[in-house]
Amino acid sequence: MRAVQVKREIVRFRNGKAERIEDNIVTEYTVTIKLNGQEFVTMVCSPEYIEEMVVGFLASEGVITNFNDIEKIWFQEKEGFFHIHTKKVNPFYSKLQGKRYITSCCGMSRHGFVFANDALTAKKMNGIKLSLSADDCYRLMEEMQKSAHLFQRTGGVHNAALCDVNGIIISRMDIGRHNALDKIYGHCLKHNISMSDKIIVFSGRISSEILSKVSKIGCPIVLSKSAPTELALSLAEELGITTVGFIRSESMNVYTHIERIIS
Amino acid sequence: MRAVQVKREIVRFRNGKAERIEDNIVTEYTVTIKLNGQEFVTMVCSPEYIEEMVVGFLASEGVITNFNDIEKIWFQEKEGFFHIHTKKVNPFYSKLQGKRYITSCCGMSRHGFVFANDALTAKKMNGIKLSLSADDCYRLMEEMQKSAHLFQRTGGVHNAALCDVNGIIISRMDIGRHNALDKIYGHCLKHNISMSDKIIVFSGRISSEILSKVSKIGCPIVLSKSAPTELALSLAEELGITTVGFIRSESMNVYTHIERIIS
Repeated sequence: MRAVQVKREIVRFRNGKAERIEDNIVTEYTVTIKLNGQEFVTMVCSPEYIEEMVVGFLASEGVITNFNDIEKIWFQEKEGFFHIHTKKVNPFYSKLQGKRYITSCCGMSRHGFVFANDALTAKKMNGIKLSLSADDCYRLMEEMQKSAHLFQRTGGVHNAALCDVNGIIISRMDIGRHNALDKIYGHCLKHNISMSDKIIVFSGRISSEILSKVSKIGCPIVLSKSAPTELALSLAEELGITTVGFIRSESMNVYTHIERIIS
Repeated sequence: MRAVQVKREIVRFRNGKAERIEDNIVTEYTVTIKLNGQEFVTMVCSPEYIEEMVVGFLASEGVITNFNDIEKIWFQEKEGFFHIHTKKVNPFYSKLQGKRYITSCCGMSRHGFVFANDALTAKKMNGIKLSLSADDCYRLMEEMQKSAHLFQRTGGVHNAALCDVNGIIISRMDIGRHNALDKIYGHCLKHNISMSDKIIVFSGRISSEILSKVSKIGCPIVLSKSAPTELALSLAEELGITTVGFIRSESMNVYTHIERIIS
């Protein structure tokens, strides 16, 4: 596999002086999924945990529902083709790929879903019991950031971690925001890890796309260092997900389903 | 048009206390382009300058080459459908949409392009004379950040500005990184603004996708507050684009085509 970062000579200007130094730069890798022999999608990602990412992506798109739906996986690494043969394909899927989710009257979805397959694969988390204190949130964010070595060196990636209240279970990074979450999802599917008692900690903004992804993975709480969007919050209300943003050392904002944050 | 941000009641935890406050949250808007009557693509964006974004996106994808290629534009705002009728469609286009760019031997493109249409629409900037001092770079980045009011209030958007050495010409924001650039591109096409003597200043990371976009817009210099990826730098070398990253008050990194940075 290629390296996730490489050394490169650059020129740094600082306080009026220029000097040639060696710097760390993150890499991008292009992978094309061939699903049952057909070109399915081309993704740009950081070159690690590719199989998990592909599995997580296909599940999140509703193509497969669990790891056993896959019959054969074959990676042409040098060429960047990832072949997947499935035992069956969700019959609704092919009609929905990339299509907008439109309901009756005015083109806008009632629930705020953008794409049709999101409405198919999102899970409702309402009623799932799991709780954290504000101090747990600060601590989990701090742990995630400490584990994010590559970001500290290159400034170029997003980080996501799957946690329980005791700490990080796995953490993944990627140059693509949703890829980091797909890598976590794929890992959990492959190893049959239950997700409804877990928390996602994320370095980036919570857009509707990221919130949808969290609901597909099946975690009832998402913690972010950054801001959410309004559409993400409408979805989170509807799907029963607790959204916490702008987590800094001693402050944070709770946007939705505050009942899971205990004092 | 919908607002780009809305007020929302949230609960803020700070120094052990929780209080209910009103906060600003950015919105997401979904727009589906119908090209000559066919559903073409669905984009999620901030709801302003939609026409510019659609025009910039279609040009950047190689569907149109200038604003006059468009015969009719019609926006069903409430439903979020943007209809475009073109006088002609690039005959290569429909075969290339979303397809990976593959050259002879090993699946990987020689130039580092990911998608076939990027190879079609990227412009080479080699030989274009335009120069900036390090102080110009610091000043333009500072101006861009000062103009980025919405980010300061909500923390949820990316900002891009088109500049010349004297300062900002236009600046655009969006929740989607490339949308902000498409909005600039569309504006320039619509108003016939030459781009080869301009500079793009961007708040986000310079991925290969962003670098491709800059080359399609046709600017020879890109300045960023953040990090580039290795693939973006290979493309920048090849396409003759000067890439400057990590611009802070008195420091910055020059990665490619340093000949345009004068001391």
